[in-house]
Amino acid sequence: MNVEIINPFIEATINVLKTMARVEPKPGNPALKTSNKTWGAVTGVIGMAGDKVSGSLCVSFDEGSILEIVSSMFGEPFTSLNNEVVDAVGEITNMITGGTKKLLAEKGFQFEMATPMMITGKDVELKFLVNSPVIQVPFKIDKGQFVVEANLSPRQQKER
Amino acid sequence: MNVEIINPFIEATINVLKTMARVEPKPGNPALKTSNKTWGAVTGVIGMAGDKVSGSLCVSFDEGSILEIVSSMFGEPFTSLNNEVVDAVGEITNMITGGTKKLLAEKGFQFEMATPMMITGKDVELKFLVNSPVIQVPFKIDKGQFVVEANLSPRQQKER
Repeated sequence: MNVEIINPFIEATINVLKTMARVEPKPGNPALKTSNKTWGAVTGVIGMAGDKVSGSLCVSFDEGSILEIVSSMFGEPFTSLNNEVVDAVGEITNMITGGTKKLLAEKGFQFEMATPMMITGKDVELKFLVNSPVIQVPFKIDKGQFVVEANLSPRQQKER
Repeated sequence: MNVEIINPFIEATINVLKTMARVEPKPGNPALKTSNKTWGAVTGVIGMAGDKVSGSLCVSFDEGSILEIVSSMFGEPFTSLNNEVVDAVGEITNMITGGTKKLLAEKGFQFEMATPMMITGKDVELKFLVNSPVIQVPFKIDKGQFVVEANLSPRQQKER
C-alpha cells in the first residue's frame, strides 16, 4: 500500500468522529501491522473493491474509546459492549470508509464498499490474504484508543 | 437476499472443489443463518461490492473437511490447521467468490471482490450489518462438513 494514500484514511477518521461524536482523535504514527490478530475489543471491517484496486479497512476500538464515542453519539451513557455498540462500530466503520472513498476517488483510486462486519473479541486470529502490507494508525481520545488498519493495492489480475 | 441467486453460490462451490481438490461436496438445504458466530474452525470471508449490490461470502470449514480438501489439493497429508491451511481457506474462498461472480454477472448482478480474509476459531462473534438475511448452505464431504454463508442485496443508497 502506497504510503501517500494513508492520509485520506486518517482525514476521514478524524472528520467522521468530529462530526458524529464530537470527539477529536489524535493520530499517532502509521506503522506496518505485524500481528495477525484483532487489536481491540470490537473491530469493524469493510471490504473495498474496484476494477483496479482491492483492499479492506478495519477500525478496532478498545472498550474505553468505543464507549466514549457511542455515549457521545447517542447522548446517553453506554457502559458495556452490547448489541447497539457493536452495530455502531459497523456504522462508524462504514462512514469512515465512505469518507475515505470520496477522498481517494479524487486521487484516482475508485472502489465500491462491501457489507460492514463486526468482530467482537480481542486477539481474534484475523489474517488478510494480501501481498501488500497492512498499515496501522493508532488514535487516542480521552478515554481510550483505537486503531485504523488499511490495505489497498492494485489488482494483480482479474479473477476468473 | 433473493433465493434464486443462492444457486450460483452452490454451483461455484461444487465446481471449485471438484476442480481444485477432486472432492464432490453434497449440498444440504439452504436456511437462514440465525447465529452471529463463526460456524467452523476456519472461516474465509470476501466482501462483494458493485455499483448496485453489496454483500459478503463466508466459507466456514470444520477441521475434518478443510484437512481433507487441502491434503487432496496439495497431494500430501495435512493434519493440523497451520498457516498454509489458513491461507488455502482464503484462496478457496477467493475462487468460490470468483466463480459466483461470473455466474451472477450473467444474471445482471455485477460486483468486484474485496481482499480475502480468514478468521481462525469456532464461535467467534461475527456479525454483518445488513438488513437482508444471510443464507447458509451446508455441504458434506467424506471427512467433515463446511458451510457457505452469503448475503447480497441492492444498495439502499450511495454512500457519501
